[in-house]
Amino acid sequence: MSEQDLKAMQAPRYTGVPTFMRMPYRESAAGLDIALIGVPYDGGVTNRPGARHGPREIRNQSSLMRTINQATGVSPYELCDIADVGDAVVERPFQLEQAHEQIQAWYEKLAATGAVPLSAGGDHSITLPILRVLGRDRPVGLIQIDAHCDTGDDYLGSRFHHGSPFSRAVDEGVLDPKRCVQIGIRGGINGRDQWAFSYEHGMRVIQMHEAHEMGLDAVIAEARRVVGDGPTYFTFDIDGIDPAYAPGTGTPEIGGFTALEAQLLVRGMSGVNLVGADIVEVAPPFDPSGITALTGATIMFELLCILAEAVAARKG
Amino acid sequence: MSEQDLKAMQAPRYTGVPTFMRMPYRESAAGLDIALIGVPYDGGVTNRPGARHGPREIRNQSSLMRTINQATGVSPYELCDIADVGDAVVERPFQLEQAHEQIQAWYEKLAATGAVPLSAGGDHSITLPILRVLGRDRPVGLIQIDAHCDTGDDYLGSRFHHGSPFSRAVDEGVLDPKRCVQIGIRGGINGRDQWAFSYEHGMRVIQMHEAHEMGLDAVIAEARRVVGDGPTYFTFDIDGIDPAYAPGTGTPEIGGFTALEAQLLVRGMSGVNLVGADIVEVAPPFDPSGITALTGATIMFELLCILAEAVAARKG
Amino acid sequence: MSEQDLKAMQAPRYTGVPTFMRMPYRESAAGLDIALIGVPYDGGVTNRPGARHGPREIRNQSSLMRTINQATGVSPYELCDIADVGDAVVERPFQLEQAHEQIQAWYEKLAATGAVPLSAGGDHSITLPILRVLGRDRPVGLIQIDAHCDTGDDYLGSRFHHGSPFSRAVDEGVLDPKRCVQIGIRGGINGRDQWAFSYEHGMRVIQMHEAHEMGLDAVIAEARRVVGDGPTYFTFDIDGIDPAYAPGTGTPEIGGFTALEAQLLVRGMSGVNLVGADIVEVAPPFDPSGITALTGATIMFELLCILAEAVAARKG
Amino acid sequence: MSEQDLKAMQAPRYTGVPTFMRMPYRESAAGLDIALIGVPYDGGVTNRPGARHGPREIRNQSSLMRTINQATGVSPYELCDIADVGDAVVERPFQLEQAHEQIQAWYEKLAATGAVPLSAGGDHSITLPILRVLGRDRPVGLIQIDAHCDTGDDYLGSRFHHGSPFSRAVDEGVLDPKRCVQIGIRGGINGRDQWAFSYEHGMRVIQMHEAHEMGLDAVIAEARRVVGDGPTYFTFDIDGIDPAYAPGTGTPEIGGFTALEAQLLVRGMSGVNLVGADIVEVAPPFDPSGITALTGATIMFELLCILAEAVAARKG
Amino acid sequence: MSEQDLKAMQAPRYTGVPTFMRMPYRESAAGLDIALIGVPYDGGVTNRPGARHGPREIRNQSSLMRTINQATGVSPYELCDIADVGDAVVERPFQLEQAHEQIQAWYEKLAATGAVPLSAGGDHSITLPILRVLGRDRPVGLIQIDAHCDTGDDYLGSRFHHGSPFSRAVDEGVLDPKRCVQIGIRGGINGRDQWAFSYEHGMRVIQMHEAHEMGLDAVIAEARRVVGDGPTYFTFDIDGIDPAYAPGTGTPEIGGFTALEAQLLVRGMSGVNLVGADIVEVAPPFDPSGITALTGATIMFELLCILAEAVAARKG
Amino acid sequence: MSEQDLKAMQAPRYTGVPTFMRMPYRESAAGLDIALIGVPYDGGVTNRPGARHGPREIRNQSSLMRTINQATGVSPYELCDIADVGDAVVERPFQLEQAHEQIQAWYEKLAATGAVPLSAGGDHSITLPILRVLGRDRPVGLIQIDAHCDTGDDYLGSRFHHGSPFSRAVDEGVLDPKRCVQIGIRGGINGRDQWAFSYEHGMRVIQMHEAHEMGLDAVIAEARRVVGDGPTYFTFDIDGIDPAYAPGTGTPEIGGFTALEAQLLVRGMSGVNLVGADIVEVAPPFDPSGITALTGATIMFELLCILAEAVAARKG
Repeated sequence: MSEQDLKAMQAPRYTGVPTFMRMPYRESAAGLDIALIGVPYDGGVTNRPGARHGPREIRNQSSLMRTINQATGVSPYELCDIADVGDAVVERPFQLEQAHEQIQAWYEKLAATGAVPLSAGGDHSITLPILRVLGRDRPVGLIQIDAHCDTGDDYLGSRFHHGSPFSRAVDEGVLDPKRCVQIGIRGGINGRDQWAFSYEHGMRVIQMHEAHEMGLDAVIAEARRVVGDGPTYFTFDIDGIDPAYAPGTGTPEIGGFTALEAQLLVRGMSGVNLVGADIVEVAPPFDPSGITALTGATIMFELLCILAEAVAARKG
Repeated sequence: MSEQDLKAMQAPRYTGVPTFMRMPYRESAAGLDIALIGVPYDGGVTNRPGARHGPREIRNQSSLMRTINQATGVSPYELCDIADVGDAVVERPFQLEQAHEQIQAWYEKLAATGAVPLSAGGDHSITLPILRVLGRDRPVGLIQIDAHCDTGDDYLGSRFHHGSPFSRAVDEGVLDPKRCVQIGIRGGINGRDQWAFSYEHGMRVIQMHEAHEMGLDAVIAEARRVVGDGPTYFTFDIDGIDPAYAPGTGTPEIGGFTALEAQLLVRGMSGVNLVGADIVEVAPPFDPSGITALTGATIMFELLCILAEAVAARKG
Repeated sequence: MSEQDLKAMQAPRYTGVPTFMRMPYRESAAGLDIALIGVPYDGGVTNRPGARHGPREIRNQSSLMRTINQATGVSPYELCDIADVGDAVVERPFQLEQAHEQIQAWYEKLAATGAVPLSAGGDHSITLPILRVLGRDRPVGLIQIDAHCDTGDDYLGSRFHHGSPFSRAVDEGVLDPKRCVQIGIRGGINGRDQWAFSYEHGMRVIQMHEAHEMGLDAVIAEARRVVGDGPTYFTFDIDGIDPAYAPGTGTPEIGGFTALEAQLLVRGMSGVNLVGADIVEVAPPFDPSGITALTGATIMFELLCILAEAVAARKG
Repeated sequence: MSEQDLKAMQAPRYTGVPTFMRMPYRESAAGLDIALIGVPYDGGVTNRPGARHGPREIRNQSSLMRTINQATGVSPYELCDIADVGDAVVERPFQLEQAHEQIQAWYEKLAATGAVPLSAGGDHSITLPILRVLGRDRPVGLIQIDAHCDTGDDYLGSRFHHGSPFSRAVDEGVLDPKRCVQIGIRGGINGRDQWAFSYEHGMRVIQMHEAHEMGLDAVIAEARRVVGDGPTYFTFDIDGIDPAYAPGTGTPEIGGFTALEAQLLVRGMSGVNLVGADIVEVAPPFDPSGITALTGATIMFELLCILAEAVAARKG
Repeated sequence: MSEQDLKAMQAPRYTGVPTFMRMPYRESAAGLDIALIGVPYDGGVTNRPGARHGPREIRNQSSLMRTINQATGVSPYELCDIADVGDAVVERPFQLEQAHEQIQAWYEKLAATGAVPLSAGGDHSITLPILRVLGRDRPVGLIQIDAHCDTGDDYLGSRFHHGSPFSRAVDEGVLDPKRCVQIGIRGGINGRDQWAFSYEHGMRVIQMHEAHEMGLDAVIAEARRVVGDGPTYFTFDIDGIDPAYAPGTGTPEIGGFTALEAQLLVRGMSGVNLVGADIVEVAPPFDPSGITALTGATIMFELLCILAEAVAARKG
Repeated sequence: MSEQDLKAMQAPRYTGVPTFMRMPYRESAAGLDIALIGVPYDGGVTNRPGARHGPREIRNQSSLMRTINQATGVSPYELCDIADVGDAVVERPFQLEQAHEQIQAWYEKLAATGAVPLSAGGDHSITLPILRVLGRDRPVGLIQIDAHCDTGDDYLGSRFHHGSPFSRAVDEGVLDPKRCVQIGIRGGINGRDQWAFSYEHGMRVIQMHEAHEMGLDAVIAEARRVVGDGPTYFTFDIDGIDPAYAPGTGTPEIGGFTALEAQLLVRGMSGVNLVGADIVEVAPPFDPSGITALTGATIMFELLCILAEAVAARKG
């Protein structure tokens, strides 16, 4: 981290043009270890839209972040070269499948640079095109914090909405269901088979009340067991956290994790062989006090810390 | 209006399941003169979504409406049979053109009953499928209150977004550009040809600053001159009104009409041969005090009054 | 005005315990020319409650007021002794009529001191017990800025709700209908006879669209003609102002006065023989930005200026 | 559950006229097992009103509910016939005791149909008239989640405000104090005898800090012990939950249950012999992000699940 | 304007890192005709702080701006080279006078490049250091839209707060009082001499009620007469506009200009010999719906249009 | 507590001029045991200002408090004479160090009366001048609930901002670092030495994740061990609590204490030899639902209870 960049991080937090974590903005990811990316797309939302505004508000609130994780001692900027490389803009947002193709193309270009992506959505459907790139050569494992399994089927005439990215990713062979763990699942379901895909394909589903009973340490241990040593993607749907902490999201479900529990969960995955991560479903129009975007930005920083550790570990 | 219905309108306003104007809810429009319809679709929005929530909040705020227009003395319920017939639900919201086809099919069924539609959007793209039905046999004229001409061209890979319904309607022969008046146009443009379609096809464009100079009476007279005696549709985009009065909309432009001016404009069209009307682009997520939905509901009632007059006049 | 009081008015506006206009708080009105009073009662509301919180928020926002009316040059504090004398607290708020009796008793005590009341409601039903005191010996005239005539009849089982204080006051002989002017009336009505009381008793009703056509100067002249030289009460329902300027009220009606027009209307009554005034129906729970309470506080200050002139004139 | 009803529950959540849980709306409860009812009355509130708007917003947010409780596997719609039967409208809201009489009369009619009521308030005073009906033949037991015992005495001139329904219900012989458990009690008190009624009559009071020490399992066991096998009513005051999760209420007290704890508490009562339930004190004007109504709707669904189990068990 | 820049302006408005007007961000103003600058400083505020957040939210909302002013036909980007050059960051915000020195130093560097500044505050005290630079060689004239003259004296122990920049600027010889016009002045004053400085030094003060009486055309003519042909600075305090249109400001005063009137006022100054301009006092924490920042961004665009005309005219 | 005062506490909560805890307002602290004080100053804030509005909103929300702590049985008003003595107003807010001098002078006057201060800020920098008075004769110990150690060094050109009061207090010899415990510390840091002062001077820092692991009882025991029997000050920064419970603060950090945990922590310090306390950093402009001020008021009441116990114990 250059002195200039460090200085930028210490200017008053309300100043300047907001980038993720106050990192420098770069047109290209070439030479970076980790790229911070916005994916301002919410065309896959089935209820309350607004996650398209997520990257902007997460960037805004991420001005409150600092360089070192006080709880773990990790400074991602000491471990890796990191920058904000802008948005994966969807130029044809009115057609869901083409939008996903454009996002996929954007991540293919990124992959060519070797930079590992840490993305801020957008709705959860954006994880599918990212996985198509990251899992192309070998299906990846998945740590998912979420209120919903998102392994649904057709709904409202589409197979690619924000409630189905992971069933599609398994179908397409880019996700290894045996190495998937879904944590915090809760809320009602409209049929007993709503998340049957998860169970039938061997994903490990930890419902919220189970997590409560197991305790966080056991949840973390179980998740680490499931994903093992293989390449793993971490996807964090902000609705995994309780709406008291994150009201600004499209499909809120009460009874979720506290923010502290969410942080401990992420920190507990330190050492996992992460190849990418995202934070999705922050919907600013439903967030009058801004705490959802703040929570999203902080979780993104926590993800950055464990992702930087993984990248540094692979660099040796 | 039955005694029971009248009584319902006099119950405390916060009670009951909210229908448009507290009218009875009917599964079918058969036998109605005017059908009140929600079109909860905002898949054509190019910036801030949320108008899909418009019908629900307009219904909610319309509990504040009463039976008689005090300023004009008109009671639409004395002139016509009116009911809330529910929503034109889009079952495949992820594909813009198919969504429009579904809306069109819904209005075709409605047209078969003979009921005249008064709709609450939804984004402005929904007016296109409505016009396809109403202008099928003979292109209709148009009174449009709006900040934008909405006669744009392709944008973001689509010809059918909420900035282009009226160019498409002219292209498809369901709208007569010579009988179109667009009032309140303002804000920046991204090219000198942005609204060229309007000018080149002979639509009468009255920019906001022109309306201010002309005065309301002259604007009304000019609009009546343009549409003449032929069948005419009235489309009211809530962003025609200043954001102080209607902040909750997708593409706000400062410097618009006051609410009173908007009411006077609508009332000034009494006697026009109206065949339908709509109020669109109310986006509740951006409306913390609820006044946008209240304004939308009140404009909808004003439209109902002049529409009922037109329907009653045609009944003779 | 003492030096200490003046100093208090010049302390930073966010400091101190908020009284009306930052005036001293007094337990008793003895010796005062004008008493500033809160009436935190909204038991007469037929729709959205919350005006009980009005006095507190008006006090809070009135910290922004200063001593001299720049537009008219009037300083009420140079003309009169003024203080905040606290609230006319209703100890039995669950029974509407008893509540009114308690308010009446409070004002009777006040009347014994000779202080003229300037009150902040509370809902509009509170004006009835005030008029019972002020009009006891001789019925008073009325200048009313309001969206509704509030001369209704029984509704929801009561004759004394916030939609009927002025019919009751005429019935009880404390208000002279021939000297009443109601300005800004608008919105729908549920029967052609809803405000028949006003018309039948010779009140001068100026609907909003008429006021718009007449122009403010003519409205002011007409109002002054109606009330003449006799003792007159000024009641200002915040819903007389458009909800863009005052969203926080129980029964908002779009199409009202601007704040500037409201100020000019009040100033235009300078010289009228005022015996009291109030500002009612500010409902803070519906006022997320606080501008309704600010508008209420400013109108209260404008009323204070013309009331002080009237009191000073009577003192000679 | 009919196919049509099921389809309605799977339409996009922002569409249609909102009923409780998206259930069909019925004019009569005849033939139903469980009736969903709104009681839009808040005339018993001693501080911040607004709960009269609760039923409408709970209906609105309940669109997010689905058919099956994922955590327990219960689908109430498989067990019982359920519908939204509208509001117990108070036609004379200005007089507290008459209002209660009207509510009582409404529930007496309901009782004649045999349908079990699940109600959404409204303030907590509405539970008294409901208990008068349900406990007429035999006093019922009570599970109460609440920040306040609501066994107060006269306050502000009334014995029937929202802080005293359960002392009145015991006085009237419709509630068996020995079978009452009050959970989550906290906040300050204005006299050491404020909740003396509870203690003196043998109600089991579990203060919040006690519940924290005991742990949820012990609280549930104790509650089940207290109410035993007899007919029991479940009343859930939203202020039992911490204001972080439910800010929109009239008398918030910090330090309450989390939403997850609240859900676990309700689920823990599965098997209790429930004869009715309610969720009260959701006050939308104080709920800018809408999470209070969402929490209220979700708790209502959780209550519906255990109520359906009880009804089904009694049907055998 | 490059094709790339034009394309950036046509991407969806919620994408990308927000700069003023979506202009390119440049580290240096060298080569620019007009520099867009944020001044995130509110240390001179005497009441409600928050204007330090103004530049960020104005940048955010300015994504809604487009390239051409539809009402006037002016495209500033065709006339001038324009970019966002970042913020004049105050590194020592805790000492008012030193903060002003730092701002001044920043503008001195800018002046050396020849770029004309268009700034977004920040509180109104920031205009003083800007004028110190622009008026150094020759005192400039001033067009000021504002609720307050801001020619006060010492207050709260300082001569340099946001209520006194223009008295200080005259004292320092950088502002020519005879060529100053202050438009929209209103609200109370705490002494008859509060704005005596303006009157005594020959500034032309047009109070709001005078502007209302004169009409906009006369106000514009008078302002143009006062400033004449000499170099003139345009300062727009958002509180010149009514709080209905701009609630988010530190010292709101009801009864101001509408947004449309404000736009017409700015456009009316086309042709004036402008050497700089600013928009100040947008305070996002008091702006729940965001319309104040939107209004600020749009006024900034209107200022940019007339400033570009002036710069282009001087370039010949 | 006089009967009149008690009665005031039982009036409806929305009535009257709001003082802290509804206590009587006194010009002087003479004769009091405990003085409740507002310190409306936020000139030391490095990010989001607004805490200057804290005392007013805490006073407002403290109307919800009652006389007796139900969980502990303590009634501070039975133990001590207590009143609201107004604000320590800063007359020269634009210069940080002079502002602190003024606050210090105010507390010196207070100290002369013998009253123990319980203050509501304001930003955390206000604790420094208070400690200068309380620790003058003998350095005090400190219990601090906070997200940040606030033992920083120079920042933004000042040594006295709200991130450094406790390093300055140690430097000045008024605080005994060996008797300081800082609880709830979390969030990122910008250098590994950011809070080095705390560690190097022997303060006991309990980071949030440590507190979570230790459990509340152990945290309380450790804090009591650290401060021992000596005179101790209790400072509670509202950002010690999670932003879900307290969003309205200048530097929120997710992952903090729940409100209940915060209450238990305060209660756990019963018996400590407290010589003063404060609650700081409540920033109402960022608190749309008001729960931060409610939380602040309730914590202030909890502090009052243990402070009254300490004062009563010293009185013997």
